[in-house]
Amino acid sequence: MQLCSFYHLDQATKSFGIVVEEGIVDLGARFGSDCPDLKTLLARNGLGDLAGLAKQPADYPLSAVRLLPVIENPGKVFCVGMNYADKRKEFAETQDAPTLFIRFADSLAGHEAKLLKPEVTQEFDFEGELAVIIGKPAHAVKAEDALDVVAGYSCFMDATVRDMQFTWFTAGKNWPQTGGFGPWMTTADAIGDPQQLAIKTFLNGREVQNDTTGSMVHKVASIIEYISAFSPLSPGDVIITGSPGGVGKKRTPPLFMFSGDVIEVEIEKIGRLRNTIA
Amino acid sequence: MQLCSFYHLDQATKSFGIVVEEGIVDLGARFGSDCPDLKTLLARNGLGDLAGLAKQPADYPLSAVRLLPVIENPGKVFCVGMNYADKRKEFAETQDAPTLFIRFADSLAGHEAKLLKPEVTQEFDFEGELAVIIGKPAHAVKAEDALDVVAGYSCFMDATVRDMQFTWFTAGKNWPQTGGFGPWMTTADAIGDPQQLAIKTFLNGREVQNDTTGSMVHKVASIIEYISAFSPLSPGDVIITGSPGGVGKKRTPPLFMFSGDVIEVEIEKIGRLRNTIA
Repeated sequence: MQLCSFYHLDQATKSFGIVVEEGIVDLGARFGSDCPDLKTLLARNGLGDLAGLAKQPADYPLSAVRLLPVIENPGKVFCVGMNYADKRKEFAETQDAPTLFIRFADSLAGHEAKLLKPEVTQEFDFEGELAVIIGKPAHAVKAEDALDVVAGYSCFMDATVRDMQFTWFTAGKNWPQTGGFGPWMTTADAIGDPQQLAIKTFLNGREVQNDTTGSMVHKVASIIEYISAFSPLSPGDVIITGSPGGVGKKRTPPLFMFSGDVIEVEIEKIGRLRNTIA
Repeated sequence: MQLCSFYHLDQATKSFGIVVEEGIVDLGARFGSDCPDLKTLLARNGLGDLAGLAKQPADYPLSAVRLLPVIENPGKVFCVGMNYADKRKEFAETQDAPTLFIRFADSLAGHEAKLLKPEVTQEFDFEGELAVIIGKPAHAVKAEDALDVVAGYSCFMDATVRDMQFTWFTAGKNWPQTGGFGPWMTTADAIGDPQQLAIKTFLNGREVQNDTTGSMVHKVASIIEYISAFSPLSPGDVIITGSPGGVGKKRTPPLFMFSGDVIEVEIEKIGRLRNTIA
């Protein structure tokens, strides 16, 4: 099942729903004002009761809405750096522990939204990543139980101001509207093993990253164990799991993103997240 | 004027108020349910109208309350690393740009609250710091205007799991209840120049750090300019401005904190934040 957050263009309202073949089943309209968004749904109801609703006809076609970041206002967004073998080689990374940085929610953008290249940089780089959406409270979870707290997975474009990331990545990763997050979340039951997904990035249609999530050095379950040991996770929290190799900074010549470029991240069983640079 | 957030022990309610000579003037009781906390007060009213209330008699003595983190649930807590000349020498830091990491709100603790040493570490280190509390929305603010967006200043004990901070500090700085924040906020008008404040840390009564905020490499105004250029700041956001030298890791022999130890941070014109390790 695929769940999304959206803005209805004609109604000028925000809601969330199930993506079905002909469009969207509006869950916000069904659950009412005490469950205004997908984060609240994860926290209150979980996803157990949705199977019947997923069989209903679509309320709107996808063209009637603008998709929002899968979770619009996550409490915590942890990002793992240097987590694919090829990327670690490119950046000569030797640190064994997961390298973690934080994104604030105001740096996120939905599917088809503009990603904003800051004027100050000429090194706006692409990093296509698998996003993990937490579905249950998780504190000190062991790796063997960790996938049970995952609600689902999404694509993430972790666009990076490469020439400001030296400051422990905080400054290079938190410009407004630089983190594409979508188009939707595929629920964990439909993904199965998150370490067996093809992941590709395309810049203006040209394939620039191509790997599988099996190449992660720290697997999703281990990352959840590591983070939840020190920082309690809540429904709607997000973990971005790092980028494969092939980023623009390490190419000869370098390859960065500029206004008008189209950047896409495609992950098997999820779909293709598409953003335009502005 | 000094403002605090507190939990009233007998009433079992949270509120916020002005610290006066005999105790606390309860502002939460006066402003009602649409202004439930100090963050909301900063966002809605600012601090302009409080002078009259500060002359009223105290509603409670300080002994009737437990002080909470000055801002209990800040949207963003930025922390500047390696920002005092002596500390930079101790850690051989050569990076020119401010090094930034993030604390989540659930890592904060109020005055007199326990700071929790994680069981996994024997290197729980002290860092006494000046905290800056933002009072107005701030995006791309220039340094010369930056102090105008500051609501006030507080003490901060940035207790650090030193043997986990390698991962860009995120893991070493986000254990629950490791960031002492208080006892209260002194408003900016009562501070004047934030770069002329004596700052000292005491472990079990022994002075272990002693410097002035004039030794900051990046001054408060420059830090606000740097951060607000990429990440919009809102009322109630907090910036922790780094620790002077003298931290336990770099002593011979090293000096760390263990259960029962008392750690205090004293800053001129603010007061003394006191926490016990557990």
